[in-house]
Amino acid sequence: MTRTLLLDHGSGGRASQRLINECFLRHFANPVLERLDDAAILDMRGPLAMSTDSYTVTPLFFPGGSIGALAVHGTVNDVAMLGARPRFLSCAFILEEGLEMDVLDRVARDMAEAAREAEVLIVAGDTKVVPHGACDKMFITTTGLGEVLVDPAPSGARARPGDAVLVSGTVGDHGVTVMAQRNSLSFASDVQSDSAPLNRMAEALVRLGDIHVLRDPTRGGLATALNEIAAQSGCAIAIRETEIPVRASVRSACSLLGLDPLYLANEGKLVCILPESRAGAALDIMRASPYGKDAARIGVVLEPDAVLRPGQLVLETPIGGRRLLSMLEGDQLPRIC
Amino acid sequence: MTRTLLLDHGSGGRASQRLINECFLRHFANPVLERLDDAAILDMRGPLAMSTDSYTVTPLFFPGGSIGALAVHGTVNDVAMLGARPRFLSCAFILEEGLEMDVLDRVARDMAEAAREAEVLIVAGDTKVVPHGACDKMFITTTGLGEVLVDPAPSGARARPGDAVLVSGTVGDHGVTVMAQRNSLSFASDVQSDSAPLNRMAEALVRLGDIHVLRDPTRGGLATALNEIAAQSGCAIAIRETEIPVRASVRSACSLLGLDPLYLANEGKLVCILPESRAGAALDIMRASPYGKDAARIGVVLEPDAVLRPGQLVLETPIGGRRLLSMLEGDQLPRIC
Repeated sequence: MTRTLLLDHGSGGRASQRLINECFLRHFANPVLERLDDAAILDMRGPLAMSTDSYTVTPLFFPGGSIGALAVHGTVNDVAMLGARPRFLSCAFILEEGLEMDVLDRVARDMAEAAREAEVLIVAGDTKVVPHGACDKMFITTTGLGEVLVDPAPSGARARPGDAVLVSGTVGDHGVTVMAQRNSLSFASDVQSDSAPLNRMAEALVRLGDIHVLRDPTRGGLATALNEIAAQSGCAIAIRETEIPVRASVRSACSLLGLDPLYLANEGKLVCILPESRAGAALDIMRASPYGKDAARIGVVLEPDAVLRPGQLVLETPIGGRRLLSMLEGDQLPRIC
Repeated sequence: MTRTLLLDHGSGGRASQRLINECFLRHFANPVLERLDDAAILDMRGPLAMSTDSYTVTPLFFPGGSIGALAVHGTVNDVAMLGARPRFLSCAFILEEGLEMDVLDRVARDMAEAAREAEVLIVAGDTKVVPHGACDKMFITTTGLGEVLVDPAPSGARARPGDAVLVSGTVGDHGVTVMAQRNSLSFASDVQSDSAPLNRMAEALVRLGDIHVLRDPTRGGLATALNEIAAQSGCAIAIRETEIPVRASVRSACSLLGLDPLYLANEGKLVCILPESRAGAALDIMRASPYGKDAARIGVVLEPDAVLRPGQLVLETPIGGRRLLSMLEGDQLPRIC
């Protein structure tokens, strides 16, 4: 195999086959993929959950992860947030001519490892190679399929007044890590991305029962995710600043850079909204996961009233103030995921 | 909505929501998509066929189609080639900052129209906006899910000696069209892309029974598809040059440019391999479709012998010669689909 990627590797011809055999099949090996037809046949019963995401993060590798791990975790998590068990992934690569083959190989290896941990099979794929300059190194699109475990499924529209709002750990880690890496900022050197598969934690929560909402606060961060949920549910949500877990290093990086950790992307955290009576048990489940030890109850869902309208999110500050948090307006960090 | 795409439209925040509402939901409207959770819930029973492809074609619009129509047709066809009925699509957009919003709107409209004709629902999506220069205008990745209709499914590994090899129409139209468009070549002005959904034709063939192989000869063209099938099946395949339908304008464009229509991409053609006794009925089915009127029997599957080894494809020329056609080696046309 050549050391760098050529246009021929995306031709659909012999060079494509070599790339598939020597890189993708080697890492992703499983009987469904090895069939090598244009589509995979899956023995799977409905109802199903389906989710897709493109990953364009730069740099491709960062402390705690890579575009490959992220492309598996992100899509696995989106499927899991519907209370489904992720089973199968497809992955489509758009690659820039001249990319080092070693880079592609490391990314594929990371994807394979992440898929093994999440217990999903990569069953279908595609590779396009575009001329130098037509894309920046590598984009990956993954699509996930899962088996729905509960009916009704958790949904952003099911938050109810009185529900507790939980988050599974510290927020802002992924956003600060990628930004620090991109700008070679040394002061955030001990932060790493939280990129992780949340499907087992989510399944344990769903089996607890009566989970109203599960959502992973990725692009736009915690504040945007809670705004969306409040809007979809026609409720208001109040969170307490002192209860929201934020690493000291993330907090200081954010204050230096004028960023708000509540709007930074997370790639291994989930928000869980459920009746107050089950909040303690849900926190125990989260904390039993390797990805949930900093889980916390951060707020409550409220009946809208004259002050707080449907769809609004309010932050209660340590000194007793209240501040409306709107959805993210601009884009703090393009290509964060 | 602004006239050009901003990074904010990919932020996951408010601008993203406006883009989703004003462009994608408007065109793709259906109840599953409108749920707006991170994944779609599908009422679907297995076994399933799943396929994914990224589309990077340039230019975005060409006679007979666009990247939007292609992104639906290509994935619908890959699912259909497994003898499955395509039901659901996800689509993920990677968009360049500064793209004209009208262009995105036209592409989304084309996707919606193509999905309606193919009777598939677009149920999940994602939009990433990357800074100017990080991608060339627009890439689309679609993933298709279908219900498997027969067991065993058609497969590239099921060609058997004695089988007839059929193609559903003229080859090379898409490849020549895109190339002519890209280079403003006037001599190919009456050719247009064959981009079309083949799922109904494929389903009718599958219901005829005993279809061994269905494949759409896209990148790499007819010769590459038949090479793959010969290799997967451990057979040899012989095709007759005079039987292969090629438009006169495609033939003359190819001879001027030194290209071989047998290696050019098709986006609305299928290869069908089945027992000789059913070939006539299969041709009737193809010719009854609006996309199959030029369907033809072009060859036969052979037992490998001392001359023709397993995996080889041989072309019988009009003057009685025989020429081995190998798989595409280089890439005649990058970004053809």
